[in-house]
Amino acid sequence: MVSSPTPFSDRLLGTNELERRLARRLYESVADLPIVSPHGHVPAELLADPEARLGPPGRLFVSNDHYVLRMLYSQGIRLEQLGLTPLGEEPVEGDDRKVWQRLADNFQLFSGTPSGLWTAATLANVFGIEERLTSVNAQAIYDLLAEQLESAEFAPRALLDRFGIEVLATTDAAESGLEPHRRLHEEGWGKRVRPTFRPEAVTAIGSPGWRESLERLEAVCEREIGDYRAFLEVLEERRASFKALGATATDHATETLQTERLSEQEAGSIFRRALRAEVTPGEAERFGAHMLWETARMSCDDGLVMQIRAGSMRDHNSKLKERFGSDIGGDIPVALDWTHGLRPLLAAHGNDPRLRLILSTLDESTYSRELAPLAGHYPAVLLGPPWWFHDSPNGIGRYLDSITETAGFQNLAGFVDDAHNLIAIPARHDVWRRATCAWLARKVLIGILDEEDATRIAGELACGLARRAFRLPE
Amino acid sequence: MVSSPTPFSDRLLGTNELERRLARRLYESVADLPIVSPHGHVPAELLADPEARLGPPGRLFVSNDHYVLRMLYSQGIRLEQLGLTPLGEEPVEGDDRKVWQRLADNFQLFSGTPSGLWTAATLANVFGIEERLTSVNAQAIYDLLAEQLESAEFAPRALLDRFGIEVLATTDAAESGLEPHRRLHEEGWGKRVRPTFRPEAVTAIGSPGWRESLERLEAVCEREIGDYRAFLEVLEERRASFKALGATATDHATETLQTERLSEQEAGSIFRRALRAEVTPGEAERFGAHMLWETARMSCDDGLVMQIRAGSMRDHNSKLKERFGSDIGGDIPVALDWTHGLRPLLAAHGNDPRLRLILSTLDESTYSRELAPLAGHYPAVLLGPPWWFHDSPNGIGRYLDSITETAGFQNLAGFVDDAHNLIAIPARHDVWRRATCAWLARKVLIGILDEEDATRIAGELACGLARRAFRLPE
Amino acid sequence: MVSSPTPFSDRLLGTNELERRLARRLYESVADLPIVSPHGHVPAELLADPEARLGPPGRLFVSNDHYVLRMLYSQGIRLEQLGLTPLGEEPVEGDDRKVWQRLADNFQLFSGTPSGLWTAATLANVFGIEERLTSVNAQAIYDLLAEQLESAEFAPRALLDRFGIEVLATTDAAESGLEPHRRLHEEGWGKRVRPTFRPEAVTAIGSPGWRESLERLEAVCEREIGDYRAFLEVLEERRASFKALGATATDHATETLQTERLSEQEAGSIFRRALRAEVTPGEAERFGAHMLWETARMSCDDGLVMQIRAGSMRDHNSKLKERFGSDIGGDIPVALDWTHGLRPLLAAHGNDPRLRLILSTLDESTYSRELAPLAGHYPAVLLGPPWWFHDSPNGIGRYLDSITETAGFQNLAGFVDDAHNLIAIPARHDVWRRATCAWLARKVLIGILDEEDATRIAGELACGLARRAFRLPE
Repeated sequence: MVSSPTPFSDRLLGTNELERRLARRLYESVADLPIVSPHGHVPAELLADPEARLGPPGRLFVSNDHYVLRMLYSQGIRLEQLGLTPLGEEPVEGDDRKVWQRLADNFQLFSGTPSGLWTAATLANVFGIEERLTSVNAQAIYDLLAEQLESAEFAPRALLDRFGIEVLATTDAAESGLEPHRRLHEEGWGKRVRPTFRPEAVTAIGSPGWRESLERLEAVCEREIGDYRAFLEVLEERRASFKALGATATDHATETLQTERLSEQEAGSIFRRALRAEVTPGEAERFGAHMLWETARMSCDDGLVMQIRAGSMRDHNSKLKERFGSDIGGDIPVALDWTHGLRPLLAAHGNDPRLRLILSTLDESTYSRELAPLAGHYPAVLLGPPWWFHDSPNGIGRYLDSITETAGFQNLAGFVDDAHNLIAIPARHDVWRRATCAWLARKVLIGILDEEDATRIAGELACGLARRAFRLPE
Repeated sequence: MVSSPTPFSDRLLGTNELERRLARRLYESVADLPIVSPHGHVPAELLADPEARLGPPGRLFVSNDHYVLRMLYSQGIRLEQLGLTPLGEEPVEGDDRKVWQRLADNFQLFSGTPSGLWTAATLANVFGIEERLTSVNAQAIYDLLAEQLESAEFAPRALLDRFGIEVLATTDAAESGLEPHRRLHEEGWGKRVRPTFRPEAVTAIGSPGWRESLERLEAVCEREIGDYRAFLEVLEERRASFKALGATATDHATETLQTERLSEQEAGSIFRRALRAEVTPGEAERFGAHMLWETARMSCDDGLVMQIRAGSMRDHNSKLKERFGSDIGGDIPVALDWTHGLRPLLAAHGNDPRLRLILSTLDESTYSRELAPLAGHYPAVLLGPPWWFHDSPNGIGRYLDSITETAGFQNLAGFVDDAHNLIAIPARHDVWRRATCAWLARKVLIGILDEEDATRIAGELACGLARRAFRLPE
Repeated sequence: MVSSPTPFSDRLLGTNELERRLARRLYESVADLPIVSPHGHVPAELLADPEARLGPPGRLFVSNDHYVLRMLYSQGIRLEQLGLTPLGEEPVEGDDRKVWQRLADNFQLFSGTPSGLWTAATLANVFGIEERLTSVNAQAIYDLLAEQLESAEFAPRALLDRFGIEVLATTDAAESGLEPHRRLHEEGWGKRVRPTFRPEAVTAIGSPGWRESLERLEAVCEREIGDYRAFLEVLEERRASFKALGATATDHATETLQTERLSEQEAGSIFRRALRAEVTPGEAERFGAHMLWETARMSCDDGLVMQIRAGSMRDHNSKLKERFGSDIGGDIPVALDWTHGLRPLLAAHGNDPRLRLILSTLDESTYSRELAPLAGHYPAVLLGPPWWFHDSPNGIGRYLDSITETAGFQNLAGFVDDAHNLIAIPARHDVWRRATCAWLARKVLIGILDEEDATRIAGELACGLARRAFRLPE
């Protein structure tokens, strides 16, 4: 057996020395640029509390990582064995070490996957562990990780500095009081850690938990929401509060992609029926389509950047959802129709220079068919980076290959890491930077770009585009 | 900064010397072959008038180029700033130099796009300008271009010779009198410049402008079209007139792809309702599906090759359409279903050796799923080249990768440039020839083709297939 | 003309020496592994009869090969000229030599196609004919082939040994009596040649031939099937009989992909209407969806692995079907929706550790959008290899590129050759092994896998995964 000829430091930069030499030059020009992270799911609480820690290794790398859970579950390992507790039950497995061991025992499942790349890079670059994780060394590595994770150097705020994170946006429910963000703001971290407005729970008027979400919204606004007009006013008020605490964007996840403008009267009457718990699924869907339209209108007014993530069916696995609650039930993508779905919204707001609408998809067939033509035409539209499953070396290649010839680079919104886990942020940006530089190097070698262009574009993709797309001051 | 290691003359031929050496040999065997251009949108008037000129640089490269307009518009530049005049208004910006300057100021938007490649190659190879266009040199380059464009050497007919264009087909409405083609025919250019029959305006019985189109058709035929039977007869008569002036093909653009055979009675009754402006959208759609079926039947009879371009939603941006008219409103592709949609037509005519049906799509997911299996089975079906957004280096690669393993090469219809702009034709064929040769070189290097096969196929792709597909004598 | 720089023995292994050197090492580790063939269409009769022969060259390589027939037909060669006889007519062309000559005369149609690769490799490696097939040498090669094909060394059972086929599964109708398999079993070949249970003809209650299929099922079970309950019992009984003769799997082809659970009462009432030939198309479709659900339930009980092949419209070319019968009429793929379609089945059985469900598609847009996320989550789901048109070098590349980052390698079911033709089996496995090794080599060179991982995965892809997925003992 001959060992790999590619040093770890050259990973993803090319398959031969000619590509690597050029990709390395491009990569060196961006490797140390600040991290701009305008969309993700790191809990604001972690950053608000200077004493907080990320947690023990098993929870951090397994129980809290939905990519890792999926893969282990797909191979027959029960979630109870991975640190998860069924709803209404007491925690069954207290031993974080066992959870970590299960990851180690099955680490080869992650060969060739982004999780495998991120984990190896995080262990090496953040924790100084270059050995490959195996069943044998799992406990020794656990000790090394656990000790570091408890130290002050691994406090979340310290990691922001160490990772060179210039700005980090969290994702926050519209009905959230934003207490952690208020504290961050007061302590001078407000420009660095910013909230993002996500109204999903209060606009999904047909979902079972809607009423409770609405009550939380009433509580946080100290106001009763008796009709549609009040509902709109409260949303506008919440957007202003988010903005005051540094938010520059809103985030909207939808399964299908429909937009529609209802008359005020019709919207009002559907909302009334929702308050009486009499709304039909069809009405709820139309109301959701209408709220996307209204959100674009609000964005024109207050300047918050609007992100749409479309096409994920949540909780496909209904048995797991029943047992463990939402967000663990195997979300699975569906086919999308952006061309028809977005048309009503774009007819009204797509030419408005005040609107910035960032689109993300899991249906790659729409990259070249719909998204690139839309972004390469409408002033308001930008394209988000490869999302979720597609935030991977091949996924990044398909994205750039399919989109940039039609949309160019200036209609992209740069990279977002979408991370739940602070510790993985550098690895995720690094994979993106390496993969984009390798892609650009091949374009130089084939004579489509010159190196000056490629260097400029590499910097834009690394952080310039994200800063501008999300209206983040440097 | 190190300059690009790839000389301009080697662009697109490969990322390393091994690929390039072989690709260069293939390319040299096709680079100087005649240009066969069986589908495009160069106005016949330009070629009919020996004194015509292509126009000043701003209009030629910006105002008249919908790819360039889209990209500049997507970045917030208004169309009025790019030489376009809103409907019903007087031209607001007379200065073609300013329009050109805007292109130069924003030229980096086109990095890595086909427009960027075509423009650079056209400036270099047609106008002898190898400098990269910048804000600084824009006006000096303008002068160089303007002077040449006014000269007799740049008269359209002179360019046909200079570019080695063996044959050029224009696209002409069924209701067109074909006066320019008549003049070309009389002056002995009839085999070199040929019309293409496009009946869209007169078969779209539900569209607002239909009645006027039908009246123009009546005028050109000097006959009243009082019923469906007369309508069919007139279409057949027009096809014969087009054929007499050199046409070998018809062209059909549809948004969705449906074909259906209505009974004569039903078609007649829908047509009657259309004449009384009482047709419903559903009836108009079925009539369109029926007319595709009828067109295939006519093609079996008169031998005109039938092209279907399916899946583009016209004028997605309704505001722009209102302001500037049709064809500027941001056409956006939609998903297609060829398998069900074409079945009625193919059931009747797909096995007929007289029919040649060329299919083009913007939905690349149908390449391997539907189009290659259809072309690799039905005698009548050939596949058109990558269309529009996908006529690009990556687009060509995806096309060949996804289609040729199932359909082979002999079920392809070769290349069409689809150009509106005569000046860009050589650059567009050159990108195709380079990209196909580079692709073939890799197949030789990996041992799938030998060089003799690859050389033969390169020639077929460059012009042989197009000549045969469109029944153009050499 | 310079001859190809790539020796035949290095085909598919890479475009340059760096890739090839590594790919060759990987390939050498798997090239001689046994062939595991858990799904295909070799007739069991051939293997049951020690005196059987594969037939003369024209029939073997042309008339019986639907890939080859399609391509020749697409270029205007009539099926009657290729050895096929229209229904109800006497064979019109007795001369197998002419059929072979037609293949030779048109062999360049197969340049760059899998059929071209398989044929060249089969001629070279099985028959020792390295010359390229041409019009000139066709008859001499015919003689060489015919002589060998008649010899005892080319008896099907002898070829199993010579090809190193460890296990071969055939595909057998539920209503088949399995006589050949019984004979194989008695003669000690039962572990090597296994049946697969395919109930399509008896579950398609709306199809014209259903009643006859049901009668055959009654005959083979010696029992009347008077109601739905009896129908289920008979299916379970047949599954047990298949299992007793070595079956480890069932196979289910569907055009659209729907699953649904009907109540026993509703299923019973639809079945009753089918028996009275009163079933509607909608009822037949729902019954089919229900039977997929029931089949998964039975698989949980008896452990037979369930394969679903979805998305092929059978007999698209209705004229050919009328003239030559089914299975020659140009099957064409359609778009699929696995996410919604499989949900009812997976909700009930997807978390059941007893179920193994292998999914195959012709709609590659679902690879990354739906299939990889499903396989990377549900314990029951594995992904079948690239199917049919996509079992090709580019197809294999797209499959691995799109799927493995999300699903990993352990959620794949390995390779199946799906061959109708025993003679082609080694060539098909060899293309898969070469293409996967070349793909893995590039992942090593770019630093995503190390060589040890890649070697392990190459072996898994070659036969390990297939053995485990199909529950085949080594």
